This record gives sequence, structure tokens and C-alpha cells, in this order.
Amino acid sequence: METKENRQCENDTDLFDMMEEQLYAAVISDALDAAGFREQALRHTIRPLLPETIVVGRVMPVLCLDVYEIPDEPYQQEIAAVDSLKQNDVLVCSTNGSTRICFWGELLSTAARARGARGAVIDGFIRDVRPIMEMRFPIFTTGISPVDSNGRGEVVAYNVPIECGGVLVNPGDIVFGDADGVVVIPQTVETQVIEAALEKVRGENRTRDALQEGATLREVYDKYGIL
Amino acid sequence: METKENRQCENDTDLFDMMEEQLYAAVISDALDAAGFREQALRHTIRPLLPETIVVGRVMPVLCLDVYEIPDEPYQQEIAAVDSLKQNDVLVCSTNGSTRICFWGELLSTAARARGARGAVIDGFIRDVRPIMEMRFPIFTTGISPVDSNGRGEVVAYNVPIECGGVLVNPGDIVFGDADGVVVIPQTVETQVIEAALEKVRGENRTRDALQEGATLREVYDKYGIL
Amino acid sequence: METKENRQCENDTDLFDMMEEQLYAAVISDALDAAGFREQALRHTIRPLLPETIVVGRVMPVLCLDVYEIPDEPYQQEIAAVDSLKQNDVLVCSTNGSTRICFWGELLSTAARARGARGAVIDGFIRDVRPIMEMRFPIFTTGISPVDSNGRGEVVAYNVPIECGGVLVNPGDIVFGDADGVVVIPQTVETQVIEAALEKVRGENRTRDALQEGATLREVYDKYGIL
Amino acid sequence: METKENRQCENDTDLFDMMEEQLYAAVISDALDAAGFREQALRHTIRPLLPETIVVGRVMPVLCLDVYEIPDEPYQQEIAAVDSLKQNDVLVCSTNGSTRICFWGELLSTAARARGARGAVIDGFIRDVRPIMEMRFPIFTTGISPVDSNGRGEVVAYNVPIECGGVLVNPGDIVFGDADGVVVIPQTVETQVIEAALEKVRGENRTRDALQEGATLREVYDKYGIL
Amino acid sequence: METKENRQCENDTDLFDMMEEQLYAAVISDALDAAGFREQALRHTIRPLLPETIVVGRVMPVLCLDVYEIPDEPYQQEIAAVDSLKQNDVLVCSTNGSTRICFWGELLSTAARARGARGAVIDGFIRDVRPIMEMRFPIFTTGISPVDSNGRGEVVAYNVPIECGGVLVNPGDIVFGDADGVVVIPQTVETQVIEAALEKVRGENRTRDALQEGATLREVYDKYGIL
Amino acid sequence: METKENRQCENDTDLFDMMEEQLYAAVISDALDAAGFREQALRHTIRPLLPETIVVGRVMPVLCLDVYEIPDEPYQQEIAAVDSLKQNDVLVCSTNGSTRICFWGELLSTAARARGARGAVIDGFIRDVRPIMEMRFPIFTTGISPVDSNGRGEVVAYNVPIECGGVLVNPGDIVFGDADGVVVIPQTVETQVIEAALEKVRGENRTRDALQEGATLREVYDKYGIL
Repeated sequence: METKENRQCENDTDLFDMMEEQLYAAVISDALDAAGFREQALRHTIRPLLPETIVVGRVMPVLCLDVYEIPDEPYQQEIAAVDSLKQNDVLVCSTNGSTRICFWGELLSTAARARGARGAVIDGFIRDVRPIMEMRFPIFTTGISPVDSNGRGEVVAYNVPIECGGVLVNPGDIVFGDADGVVVIPQTVETQVIEAALEKVRGENRTRDALQEGATLREVYDKYGIL
Repeated sequence: METKENRQCENDTDLFDMMEEQLYAAVISDALDAAGFREQALRHTIRPLLPETIVVGRVMPVLCLDVYEIPDEPYQQEIAAVDSLKQNDVLVCSTNGSTRICFWGELLSTAARARGARGAVIDGFIRDVRPIMEMRFPIFTTGISPVDSNGRGEVVAYNVPIECGGVLVNPGDIVFGDADGVVVIPQTVETQVIEAALEKVRGENRTRDALQEGATLREVYDKYGIL
Repeated sequence: METKENRQCENDTDLFDMMEEQLYAAVISDALDAAGFREQALRHTIRPLLPETIVVGRVMPVLCLDVYEIPDEPYQQEIAAVDSLKQNDVLVCSTNGSTRICFWGELLSTAARARGARGAVIDGFIRDVRPIMEMRFPIFTTGISPVDSNGRGEVVAYNVPIECGGVLVNPGDIVFGDADGVVVIPQTVETQVIEAALEKVRGENRTRDALQEGATLREVYDKYGIL
Repeated sequence: METKENRQCENDTDLFDMMEEQLYAAVISDALDAAGFREQALRHTIRPLLPETIVVGRVMPVLCLDVYEIPDEPYQQEIAAVDSLKQNDVLVCSTNGSTRICFWGELLSTAARARGARGAVIDGFIRDVRPIMEMRFPIFTTGISPVDSNGRGEVVAYNVPIECGGVLVNPGDIVFGDADGVVVIPQTVETQVIEAALEKVRGENRTRDALQEGATLREVYDKYGIL
Repeated sequence: METKENRQCENDTDLFDMMEEQLYAAVISDALDAAGFREQALRHTIRPLLPETIVVGRVMPVLCLDVYEIPDEPYQQEIAAVDSLKQNDVLVCSTNGSTRICFWGELLSTAARARGARGAVIDGFIRDVRPIMEMRFPIFTTGISPVDSNGRGEVVAYNVPIECGGVLVNPGDIVFGDADGVVVIPQTVETQVIEAALEKVRGENRTRDALQEGATLREVYDKYGIL
Repeated sequence: METKENRQCENDTDLFDMMEEQLYAAVISDALDAAGFREQALRHTIRPLLPETIVVGRVMPVLCLDVYEIPDEPYQQEIAAVDSLKQNDVLVCSTNGSTRICFWGELLSTAARARGARGAVIDGFIRDVRPIMEMRFPIFTTGISPVDSNGRGEVVAYNVPIECGGVLVNPGDIVFGDADGVVVIPQTVETQVIEAALEKVRGENRTRDALQEGATLREVYDKYGIL
């Protein structure tokens, strides 16, 4: 049976597949700039595990906190958060800059992929990087460490607004990451921004061709207005 | 002739070869946690030169100090420290966070390997990274720089307790590093921790299989108690 | 017609091709040390995009400043600086540690290569790293971010002395970078330093051979005086 | 003769004198929060020279850049910026986090006060702190150093938007600083914010009285809604 | 009526008054060292508001988290934590290094004092520092900022183990702070440590007298064994 | 009996008393700049304990290292270094940025003063700040902590060149510190620099007078050439 939610999901799948193929973070950042959203790039410390990684999807935000006691029932909210992931989601996690915990690892990647999630963006550390790289599960992270989160960190909320990499991120925003970093497109302007980005890709091709033929930057910029 | 020291060395060789093949830093960190040793992972800034590097061996600690004069007889203690390395040792060096010197390079790697050392973990910088990568000598380091240590840094002690990456490290401890980072197993609990780690590896395989078949994290964690 | 400038350029091309093939940053750093220039290595945070990258050429310095207004005529001085690049130049840029802007990207790399520049060393961020890696244009940088410089940063001067990575760099100095980092050879001592570096390369080969044959560091250092 | 500009200046003088007497940075920050301006407090690293210092006035922004050459005509724009100060101005300076220069000192304080300026807020270093403290000229700064700016830093623009302490600051905004730090009131909402702040001061007095009489925070917050 | 809890409280009051008068943080740190507790000094970034401040009391730990949404019912747990303070308590708060919020201010100081608390140690920022200094309420903090916590930070737990300034702190430990910093005495060794500290104070007086009379450090240390 | 060394000492005493009265760090920094010594100001993180502190004297450098073992004979070299202090010396210590130890305290201040030392400049932490402030012993430091150095840090050399606050400091240089920070005058240029500084003090007085009378900075700088 086809429902409205199914259709949304199919549209998103098509949209995100197209973006993955045709767009890149820099050109989306330029389109966000042009639309007046000039603070949408996450801090440069959030890097892909592999330089060829691309992630794009709907943001499902998670807020994590350093703790110092081993709880009676560990991982409660962390499990709930990952089990709540839907098709085309990207889990986006803030640990408030913790250097004590790994929020993410191979088993969570496996569980997230099984739910249909397209990747994870962690403002914090992860572990199990070799198997995650082999799975080709798209991950962006600020660092790597072997320690578990039990007794060190806990999820205190999910599906709420958070700050990740210095940017306020809301549930349902689109997140896009590649080798240049990660940008967030607010849901209210997503159509406008994606169209402008596609347009700019075409302009850059003309500029590149002219430069390779030996034109000066001055000539090329005066002609195409793109740098 | 077979001596007690030879046998110890052979046992260690077998042990470390087995660990290299079957264990990884994250599962050893979990086993250390379970044994109550919760601060045994070196700081995340200490990274392998190559992501596929694994190092495991007995710690031979070295303490290095920034200096500002070119000595009459340079490298005295540094030479002595490297020449003292034994089969299965891993040189573990603290420079107290110096960003002025390279403690390690290609020639020291060559000398260390010739003595039978299994690698080096440097809380500081190294140089000659291209030839070291070609040698496949396992190195973990906080950074890379081209400058020599002469007149900039000196070894002031070796085979003494040091702090490396925020962890107190004693001669004879076991150090294990891979793509997730470096952990130190105190000598007094090494048998117990290694056995617990091997046991956990088996449990993770069951968990991973269940997740790939679509079970929720909640179901899997309730069943196997492993995340 | 052959002019004095052409000959200089040809000489530089030969010199830099030879250096690229026979020298490396660590040995040049040692030769600079021996000549009494002990602060010529840029900070270790300036890293090559790809570990196999080598850059060598004449420094063309650029000074960039964070700004907070979108100018009427963007990129004015940035365009002029890149268009002024000559055969064998390496653009060396200081952004005074900015984390808000990308000074460099694919189109500037294309323009710089078309002018004959041999690479760029940026004490700041760049973008478009995938296409730049594919172009094999040699780039050293402190980080990666997707954001454009328009309204965020402006070139305020070029071809003037700047500080880059903690080192004072003058127009016409030689810059050399590889996997170990970047060093700057002041123009006044370039012949002397390059010759000393070539000599040291020969000595290191003898040392390495002796170590591989099992000699101790002590023996080898006493014999060859090289570590 | 009374002109419109004179009247504005007199109004500002009265307004700023009143604010100095009745308001404080924390309550203005709360009023800005209530008006939806939640990012108006400069970074906590910008501190008053003396804890009893209060500064309030119209922002005159100055943008300063690290340089590495002694210019033929030093201090050109710096002199022009200070000579342009008007009655009730507060010079607000960004050095983009420079730790190499002192932008401000005793003679500039003397000149600024002679023009009628009410103080200076420097996201950077100053010198001559003993005489400035004796003058009681209100200064907020990130640090103190004895070095002059000549050949180290230059003013490249003034009376333009800048970022100071992480906050975008425009010419004509009101800046207010005391022992708790510095906040910026955008010109468009200044009346509304100042009135709300005055109102909140009255509410806090009632809350404090109740707490001193032994009421619990719960009781007091339920009654007055102020914490 | 005299109860066991009253007597404990009276004992604590006498004990803490005595410690405030006769001991100081450095000598307690030395006594902790001698007892084998060598990591009990909070990070040096936690400083008293006023250099003459002394705080001593029973730890009541509070754990605070950065958030990004204004809750329906703000300050819930924060109010409960402060209302739970008992005679001789010192509130010790971790914000996990947040630079976005002020956990503490004048009204909370007023409420805490009304409950009998002896001070607060905040690994985070506070505001209202002028009135708090006038109240002479003992506060140690890492910084000062004017912004409220509503919509920026929330108390998620109290009366649980936390890490504050790099030290694990448990409910009921004794905390002591003065101009040299803050130390924590674990409850299990408090009698032993306090007695050793009192003893060392006497020894230091003899050493000081000898040095003032011109003895060398060598002579004095050989005689008294105290430095 | 009058010896050459006595006379040097008397000359130094007179010189340093004069400098303490008539000069300040900023004007000495300007004189060093004019003489071409532009990197002689210690990092701004080295601050006086009290803002009115002035220190001036001959540098006696000390090099300290973090260690992790309690030695059999603690404080050996530290005691020797302090006992070696002579009339008019200022102990200048590098701990290579350690945040684990206090190199200095009240008893060392007492011993140093008894030897005739004029103060201490510590690129590291100290303790016992209340009694040191009461003694009025001039101290500059990067921080305060209550922990002893035994088993944490050791003096490894003294009376050798060191780097302190980013500046290379030699035995016998003159160090001068006040509320603006600390500068080092190399011994070879001390007469020239001190004379130039005295001259500049006179010029600044004229500039200040003119500014107070309402002249613009432009007029005053054109007339006196001093800012």
C-alpha cells in the first residue's frame, strides 16, 4: 500500500541519490551563502573516515553527555535513538566536545544501516574504524579512540535541536558531507538551495575550461563571475 | 642453549603474534574496563602512521626533554636507549608534548628493528615517514616534522615509569595499538585481560549477525548483553 | 629570444627538478641547522593533501585577512596575486590562523598551474580537495572546509614578507615540502644549503646499510657521525 | 547653536549615564535573550582591566591585521581611526586573535578620552596597563604584552562591520561591559532591550529579598519567575 | 533535640572552621601525596573569584549539560539541586568544559548561603561577580560571562560522582580551596590526611625560620626534610 | 676588601635600582625593536602575581622536566640551583609548559631572597601565593596550583641557555618585568638599549601633554614621532 510517508521516503531517496551524484559540499555552501545562510558549515574538525565518503540525508539529532558512573541499565537511550532511525536518516550527534568517549562503533553502524540510515556525523569520537571502513558506512567524526561509552557517556535526548560542529541542527534538515566537510541545509530552504547549487555546478565547468586554456583569473571572473 | 629468558621471549613472541591476529584495541579496552582499569587508553592524538598498522609488545619507556644548547656529545642517551632494545620490545616515548623536535626517524627504526623491537609509540613527532612506511615498521605518533633533535631534545632517562598520552606506563607492561588507538595492559593483569578480550570477540560476532538479520539493538542487547 | 630572466627560469627549473628527485625536507632541515638557520621548518600543522606530494619552488607570499562584509568587488587582490604567479613559483599564504575561510580551491589551482606555478603552501584552509588531488597539484594546508572566502577573507598584500607556520618567509626564498613537512631556504644561503644536503644524503646511505647489518647505533654513529 | 547631532549626543550621554548607573551586563543579556538575540555576549576571554570598570557607548569598530614589514609610514590608519572618535563612542577592535601585537596603550587612551570616547573593547592585547588603570579609562582586553604594533599589526579598516569576541558588531550598536563581560545591543532593538532590562532589575530585587528570608528557590521561582 | 545528624553537622562545622584557619591547599596536597593520593588537585584553571577566598566543606556534586532548546519548565533540576543543599555543603559542578553558559549567579549564591552551604566550585562559568564578591560567598570558577543558562544548559543529575577539573569527585568528599587552588580529600582518608597536613604546617615553620637566618636550602633540607 | 666582582655587583645594584624606578617593559621593548631585537618579549601568559610588581636583574636560567617517579634523593638539582643564586640574580625557569608541577613556592622564595636574588620568572606554575605576595618577592608565572614537584618534576640543568616564554634566554642577560609583561635584554646590547629606553621616556611625556591639551594623534605624531 502506498502512503504519504512512503512517497516522501521515495522522493527523498531519489533526491539524495541525485545530490550524491551531482553536488558537493563546497557548491552547496556557496548556494547557502547566496541565500543568506552563511553559518551552515560544521567545524573543519569533523572529517570523513575515508576521503571518498559522501553522506546525504535527513538529520536525526542525538545529544550525548559525559557521565562518571556506570548505570544500572547502560545504553538505554542510545539503543532507543538508533532503533528509531528511519529510511534516509543521518544520525547527527553532539558530545559537547568530549574526548573521553566513543559514541559510535561497528555494531551501531550495522544496526543503523539495517534501519535504512545513510550515515552518521559525530561531533565526537568513534571506534572500530577498520570494520566501518570495510562496510563503507559513511561516517564523519572528530577523532578515534578505543574506549567504550559505558560509564563515560550517555544519550540524554534525541530528535531535538542540537549544536553540532558549531551549527544549530534541527530534526528534518538535510545534511551533506564529502571530502571538503559537512553542511546543513535548513528544511525551509532546501528546494531553493539545491536548485541554486545545481546551477552553480554548470557555471564552474565553463570557468575551469577557460582557465585551462590559459585565460587569466581576471578575464575569467569578469566573464563568468565565478571563482 | 635454552635459558629462562629465551623461553620468556619465545612465549612473548607467540603471545604477541596471537594478539596481533585475533585481538584489537577496542576489545582490549573493554576487557580492561571490566577488570576495573578504566584509564588505559592513550590520548586520541597518538595515531598510527598507516591505518592498517598493528603494534603489540613489551613497553620500553623513554623520557625525552626539550633543550636549547647543542651538546658536546649529542644523542648519548638516545643511542643507549635504542641499543638496549630487546626482542619483542616496543619503545614508548614521552616528549612532554614537545612540538620542537622529532624523536624518531628512519635510522632509529632500522636500528630498532635490527634489535628485534616490534614498533614504537611516540607521544611527540617523528620524521622520515615515507621510508618508515615503506619499511612497514609500526609507528604511532602525534605528528610529523622534518627537524632533527640535536640541540632541541635529549633523552634523560629510559626504562623508568613515564606518562605517555596521559597514561602512566611501566617497563614490562604490554602495549597494543591499531587503527582505533593504543591501550596499555598492566603486567599484573595481562593474562586475565587477554582472556576476557578473546571471549568478548566471540560474543560480538553473534551480535553482529543478529543485527545484520534485522533485529533491533534493543532485542540484540537484551539477548547478548554486548554493544 | 633568450633573456637573462629566461635563463634564470631554466636554471630554476633544473634545480627544482633535481631537488624534487634527490632531496627531502628532513635532510634540508639538517643542512639549514648546520648553517645556523635553525628555525626554518614551518609548523607541523601544515600538511600535504597527499603523503606522496613534493613541492619545491620560489616563494610568492600572500597575506590574507578575515573580513566580515561582502565587498562591492570581491576577490580583487586574490585574483591579482594568482595572475602574478610566474614559472616555478610556489604561492605561500598566511591567513593568520583563520578557521573561517578557504583561501584556495580547484579553480585557483587550475589558474596557478596554467601560469607555471609548482604548488601552494597555505597556513589556512582549502576546499575542492577531491579535484585538486586528481589534478595532482601539490598543496600543503592546515585544514579543509567547504566555505568560500567572499565576505570572509581578503588578500591585503602579496609579494611582501609574511610569517607562515611560524617562519618569516621572503619573496624569492626557496620552499621545499614533502611528507615530513615544509622548510624554507633563505635565498642568500641556497647554494650552500643544497650542496650540504646532497652530501648528507650520501652519508645516510652508509649508516642505514651498517644498521641493517646489525651494528649498534653506538658503533655506527661513532663511525659515520650521522643519525 | 543646537543641532540635531548635538541633541542626539546629549540624549546618548544621558542614556549611557543612566545605563551605567542602573543596568549591568547580565540583565541586558537576559533582555537580549528575551528579544530573541541570543548570541550577543562577547567571548569570556575579553575581560576588564579592573573589575569595577563599566563601559557603555556607541560602537566604532576597527579591524586590525598582523603584518611582518615595517611600513614607510607607520600607524597611518590607526591614527585616523582614533582621531575619528566622537563623543560617546567606544572603540571596538578585532585583531583576529593576534598574540603578537598590542593594539592599544596609554597615549591612544589619552587621545581617545580627549575626543570624548567612553572606552575601548579590544579582542587583542594592550600595553601601558598601569597608567591606563590610573587614568580610569575603561578598557576590556584579552591580554597584556609590552610590544608595539609597528611592523607587527596595522589597521586596515574602521567604521565597518567586524567580528569581535565571536559577535558580529556594527557601527552604531550599543556596547555594554562590566565585571561579567561585554554585550552588544543591535541599534534596531535598543529601546526595547533597555526597557526590558530595567524591568528585570526590579524583579530581581524581590527575588533576592525572598531568598534571604529563607524561601526555597522552588517557592521563589514559582512566585516571581526569575532566577 | 540532639540527633546523630545534628552532631555530625556540628562536628563538621568545627572541623571545617579549624581547617579554614590552620590549613591551606598546598599542605593538604602534600599530605594527600604522602598518603598515595597524587591526583587530587583540580585543574589550575579553576580559580577563586577573590585571592583571599577559602572554601572548605562536604562535596555536593552537580552535573550540567549544554542544551539548545528552551524547555517548557526551565531550571527544574537546577532548583532542586540548590534546594537540596545542607549545612556545610559545597556545591561542586561540572559543565564538561562548556563556554556557553553561566551555571551560577547571585541569586543561587543567596539561596545556597540561606541553606547553610559554605561555597561553590564550578568547572564552568558564573555571572553576577560584583554582588557575589560583595556577599563574600566563596566561589571558585573557570570564567565569567553574562549569559543565563536557560536554553543553554541544564542540570541532568546531582549527588552523583562527577569529574570536576580532571578529578573524580564523590558526594561526601571534603573539598578545600584557597589562593593556590582546590584539592579534594576522599572521605575514606580524611582523618589521616588532615592530621598529616597539620603536622607538616609545624615543620614548615622551622624550615622558614632557618632560611631567613641565611642557611642554605641544602643545609635546611638535610636537617628538616621539608621543602 | 673590594674586588672586581664586588664592583660589578655594586654597579648592577645601582643600574637595576635605576631601571626599576625610571623604566618600564613597554619602553624597553621599543628600544629593543629599534636595535633590531624584535623577539625579546616573553609570551603574554607569564604574568606578575601582583600588578604593581617590578622585577629586574641578571638571568640565572633553570631547566625543569616532568618526571613520573619519586626519586631516592628528591630536589637535588633544584636545591643546588637556588643555593647558587647570587646578588642581583633573577631565577628564570622553563618547565616546557608543564601543567603538572609547581616549581616554586614560599620556602624557595625565602631562600632566594636570602641569597640576594631580585625575583623569579617561571614559565610554569607556583604555589604558596598568599605568603609570597605578603613577602613582596617579585614573581612572574603562568599559573598557580597546590601540588609539590616531588615525583612530578626535576631540575635537569641550570646556568645554561633555555627558552622561556618563547624567547631564548642566556645566563647573564638582563630580564625586566612589570605589569605589561617581561622582556629580556641580551648582554651584548644592554648599554645601548637602556640608554635608548631612557631617551624614549622623555619623548613620551611631551606626546602625552600635547594629547591631553586636545591635539589630534596626527598632529602629535607628526611633531614628535612617538605613539
